[in-house]
Amino acid sequence: MGKRIGMRTVRLTHPPAVLGFAAVGGHMEGAGPLREYFDELSEDHFWGQKTWEQGESAMQRHALNKALEKATLHEADIECIFAGDLLNQCIGSSFSLRDTNIPFYGLYGACSTMGEALSLAAMMTDGGFARRTAALTSSHFCTAERQYRMPVPYGSQRTPTAQWTATAAGCCILGGEGEGPYITHVTAGKIVDMGITDPNNMGAAMAAAAYDTLSAVFRDTKTKPADFDLIITGDLGKLGHGIVADLFARDGVDMTKNYNDCGLMLFDVEAQDMHCGGSGCGCSASVLNGYLLRGMREKRWNRLLFAPTGALLSPTSSFQGESIPGICHAVIISNCRED
Amino acid sequence: MGKRIGMRTVRLTHPPAVLGFAAVGGHMEGAGPLREYFDELSEDHFWGQKTWEQGESAMQRHALNKALEKATLHEADIECIFAGDLLNQCIGSSFSLRDTNIPFYGLYGACSTMGEALSLAAMMTDGGFARRTAALTSSHFCTAERQYRMPVPYGSQRTPTAQWTATAAGCCILGGEGEGPYITHVTAGKIVDMGITDPNNMGAAMAAAAYDTLSAVFRDTKTKPADFDLIITGDLGKLGHGIVADLFARDGVDMTKNYNDCGLMLFDVEAQDMHCGGSGCGCSASVLNGYLLRGMREKRWNRLLFAPTGALLSPTSSFQGESIPGICHAVIISNCRED
Repeated sequence: MGKRIGMRTVRLTHPPAVLGFAAVGGHMEGAGPLREYFDELSEDHFWGQKTWEQGESAMQRHALNKALEKATLHEADIECIFAGDLLNQCIGSSFSLRDTNIPFYGLYGACSTMGEALSLAAMMTDGGFARRTAALTSSHFCTAERQYRMPVPYGSQRTPTAQWTATAAGCCILGGEGEGPYITHVTAGKIVDMGITDPNNMGAAMAAAAYDTLSAVFRDTKTKPADFDLIITGDLGKLGHGIVADLFARDGVDMTKNYNDCGLMLFDVEAQDMHCGGSGCGCSASVLNGYLLRGMREKRWNRLLFAPTGALLSPTSSFQGESIPGICHAVIISNCRED
Repeated sequence: MGKRIGMRTVRLTHPPAVLGFAAVGGHMEGAGPLREYFDELSEDHFWGQKTWEQGESAMQRHALNKALEKATLHEADIECIFAGDLLNQCIGSSFSLRDTNIPFYGLYGACSTMGEALSLAAMMTDGGFARRTAALTSSHFCTAERQYRMPVPYGSQRTPTAQWTATAAGCCILGGEGEGPYITHVTAGKIVDMGITDPNNMGAAMAAAAYDTLSAVFRDTKTKPADFDLIITGDLGKLGHGIVADLFARDGVDMTKNYNDCGLMLFDVEAQDMHCGGSGCGCSASVLNGYLLRGMREKRWNRLLFAPTGALLSPTSSFQGESIPGICHAVIISNCRED
């Protein structure tokens, strides 16, 4: 049973352990700097299916299966799964999981979904509601482009502030006992809307939400950036990452030492012509469940603040002139349960 | 901290109390048999806004505000809210909540969302992760028609198995202490797909999920239908309700005495020309947070099994020839904490 500390944060009483994790990705992800951290990479962006949407569901299944395999667990060992994606009605998740028997809670948190799913999975485990839980999410460049912007074959020009939706999925399995790392704290996101209306500039729209949630973490847990080995937002990209650092600088808080963003890590932004960087639920999910959690197991970092961000817009809301609400869900992941 | 009983069900150790609840609806809902149980009815289907989508968000805010008012609570008293809707990227919820400061977990459970939200809110409260939580959802006939089928002004013909998306929202506020009723058990849904591909026959597609989850409730809690004053699915409509009763009859389980469906209760199906009945997240949400919870407070029923169902399809999945996965999340609501 967790203990609330401050307004937004829960300190888990018996921090759940990461039992297994996996990241899968596509061609561009394999061509990036995190190539070796993926469990599986596919050059086929249909993942053996007939449509991109079905391919995205297949990617999720691959991520789930790899995570189970690495944890030496079976589907039947997972007592509930939290999953979501960017597709309308979250069909990436519902079609990926329809052949499993795993009790399922569907989420929509845009690109923050891995943070939201991990938060709820951790609390479910800590509260004794499930012995083993999973968090699963994905995104796909081709499904996202045709849903949000233009079908890829149209060859639309991208604006300088645009980001590139990752074709990737990540899965993390939690349980009461295990070697770790552990989820020690959960900080709930709230919706922050700074009035930005350009759907090709989502990094700026989400930066304020990241600043809001990270500030809540520091305040509630009485920590400062230096108390973490690494602070990671996702997927703000170049512009959003800079805005967050600037907002903290105005408060006299130094974020220049150990703050990075999944959208800047997944790709070589310049060489791969990614404009502002990567995005999509699969971006932070694959960076966490590939590079970051492996680095924690290898003690490269011992305490991580993982804070993925989501832009809660839709094409309809943008057509209607609405601004872009953002959200950021944070978890603290540590190699030490007592942290 | 909850205690797992059986494969899918959690018995809450300290069942959370319903502190407040509210239902709001539109013209058709006000013309139906549950008229007097709504807290607010509007003849304006824009709810004072410029677009239907903005109107749907406004409806959610009205439902939240009414529920807070009836519980004599303020926004700041709610430590987290679980909300979702049918709109792409769940903009009904994110735009309704962007002006609040309430920590927010976005859900997508199609028409089962009130069940999913109540389940998670109840476990969060029971686990000590939040003192007061809320579950909020909505649907709107005009936003749903233009997103899933045809814009309303086109005057499309509806098939006999079609259902009518409710223009309604419901909100339920839970807390550790209060006069009740109480959420005593939560049974997680899993995805069930019987291979039905007709998006105008969602009742049939969801019936198997309802049968699956209700069976899990009976098995896990060692109960039979007669142990409940009322068993409510939503929103299976006429056809789906009949299928569920038939499936149980084959098992020798009698569901004819006390089983109803929100899709059959919200409207006078024949007189209002609703074809198979009502549907949409707002249907089960408003029936629960209007008629049912008031009836429990008035001791008309003392133990209720509430099991809303969702069809996890999208127009894209149907265009691609996919079948319709269904899900059903159940909670037991009782006037007695020890039930």
